[in-house]
Amino acid sequence: MTDVHFDKIALIGIGLIGSSIARDVKDQGLAREIVISTRSAETLKRAEELALGDNYTLSAAEAVEGADLVVVSVPVGASESVARQIAQHLKPGAMVTDVGSTKASVIAQMAPHMPSGIHFIPGHPIAGTEKSGPDAGFLGLFKGRWCILTPIPETDAGALARLRAFWEALGSRVDEMDPQHHDKVLAIVSHLPHIIAYNIVGTADDLETVTESEVIKYSASGFRDFTRLAASDPTMWRDVCLHNRDAILEMLARFSEDLAYLQRAIRWGEGDKLFELFTRTRAIRRSIVEAGQDVDAPDFGRHALDEKKS
Amino acid sequence: MTDVHFDKIALIGIGLIGSSIARDVKDQGLAREIVISTRSAETLKRAEELALGDNYTLSAAEAVEGADLVVVSVPVGASESVARQIAQHLKPGAMVTDVGSTKASVIAQMAPHMPSGIHFIPGHPIAGTEKSGPDAGFLGLFKGRWCILTPIPETDAGALARLRAFWEALGSRVDEMDPQHHDKVLAIVSHLPHIIAYNIVGTADDLETVTESEVIKYSASGFRDFTRLAASDPTMWRDVCLHNRDAILEMLARFSEDLAYLQRAIRWGEGDKLFELFTRTRAIRRSIVEAGQDVDAPDFGRHALDEKKS
Repeated sequence: MTDVHFDKIALIGIGLIGSSIARDVKDQGLAREIVISTRSAETLKRAEELALGDNYTLSAAEAVEGADLVVVSVPVGASESVARQIAQHLKPGAMVTDVGSTKASVIAQMAPHMPSGIHFIPGHPIAGTEKSGPDAGFLGLFKGRWCILTPIPETDAGALARLRAFWEALGSRVDEMDPQHHDKVLAIVSHLPHIIAYNIVGTADDLETVTESEVIKYSASGFRDFTRLAASDPTMWRDVCLHNRDAILEMLARFSEDLAYLQRAIRWGEGDKLFELFTRTRAIRRSIVEAGQDVDAPDFGRHALDEKKS
Repeated sequence: MTDVHFDKIALIGIGLIGSSIARDVKDQGLAREIVISTRSAETLKRAEELALGDNYTLSAAEAVEGADLVVVSVPVGASESVARQIAQHLKPGAMVTDVGSTKASVIAQMAPHMPSGIHFIPGHPIAGTEKSGPDAGFLGLFKGRWCILTPIPETDAGALARLRAFWEALGSRVDEMDPQHHDKVLAIVSHLPHIIAYNIVGTADDLETVTESEVIKYSASGFRDFTRLAASDPTMWRDVCLHNRDAILEMLARFSEDLAYLQRAIRWGEGDKLFELFTRTRAIRRSIVEAGQDVDAPDFGRHALDEKKS
């Protein structure tokens, strides 16, 4: 069986994802030592208060010294900077991975800096919430969630197997995918939904005929689901937009085209076209529930939760 | 204190909303008799199996005979047909209300048919889930939710107070609003989000480069929130689109304009514009949580729920 234990794991970036990894690694004793590094002194202090690791440093270069596994969990736009900082300090044979939501860009930013003998395997755990920062992480975030690894031509099969086993130890189900294809898939299932959510919340905020307090008061009727997505980390999402541009623009064009069709059907009272679409989409929802990607409790079981709390 | 008890309540339509009203009325003994009417024999049979009322009939005209309160809970496009059927059978002094998501259209469809001496007060409880049909209703659906009444010039103050007290007895918080304004508010907080959700799920379904099974598999990353909305009742939503056309087209135009701006910012790499919007929308989310319109649990507390279930 593949050994998922490491002597020293360096976590570069300690937000929602990084800190969840730290918690899981600690909980399962997957590393003899966890070193945490982040650019912000305040965040690093908070990580230490939360006792997420064993050692803490503002220097990514220092953090990776002697590490067997380096996990980079920063906004994707910072990937190259991190790669530059750590490249010359990596231990020969070390494995470097990341958790970014876009893969082609991260590879383009990091791969050229990786010395030979380093196993660089990009990855993307599809897990998270709208919260950010080290306090937002929690034990078990990756349980039952998919993690997509996007190996590059140089990837060593043994290292890949070890990283896969690591994510599986954290409870993830692991898939492998071509980086470009990953970026298209994520553009439609994640990036576009977030962009649309940000957009509609912005539109509502700008209205003159409906007040902001009315929007807030009656948000339960659909709008609030969008506000949750639109509360996600601005830096992370700015970077996703800038670093998965082509796939996002392609999906946005399709979306807008479809929306124009829908708009025209509404204008001309073509109820049959509306009914056809509104029926078709139900089937997809059913498949998602069947695939275990959501619970079937109505309204996301929010009522159940409300009752539990009250 | 205003009496919220009725001798006979007629429920025309027994879907998610109608059947939830039936459950609450029965639970609290707000009526000596509940009569249920719906167009579909199958649905009526199911309502009877669920023991939602005291008497059941396929004839709306028969149902309203002798009723003090008539609650019409049908897709808004069926409002005129119901008004025609019941008009000549209403008891003098009876109160007629509805629960439709658009108000100007319902008033235009129903008011001309209401005989003098009938108190017609349109209403809209902002409550529901993506489920539909009599099995989808539940006790307490309206608890803590807003109900908007949109009185018309002829509305009698005493009748209005009584209907308000009725909804308050069901746990609702009641607001009064001009029908046209209601339609604009709902266009942005509810109708547009649903239309956008239907649209994006349709777009995803049509892609050639990403398979449907991939969309389903990785839906947890944002997409699934849209699929829930897009699983709502097709007939209801077709009618909403057709009957709140002007307000919806206005909001859609604003949304598309804003999306074009965002798209351009992505194309030209204008990270500052993206960051500004993505930051602004966070504040609205905060206000919604503060206003008690959503719980602050990350990911809608889905993890908490998952853990509870597992």
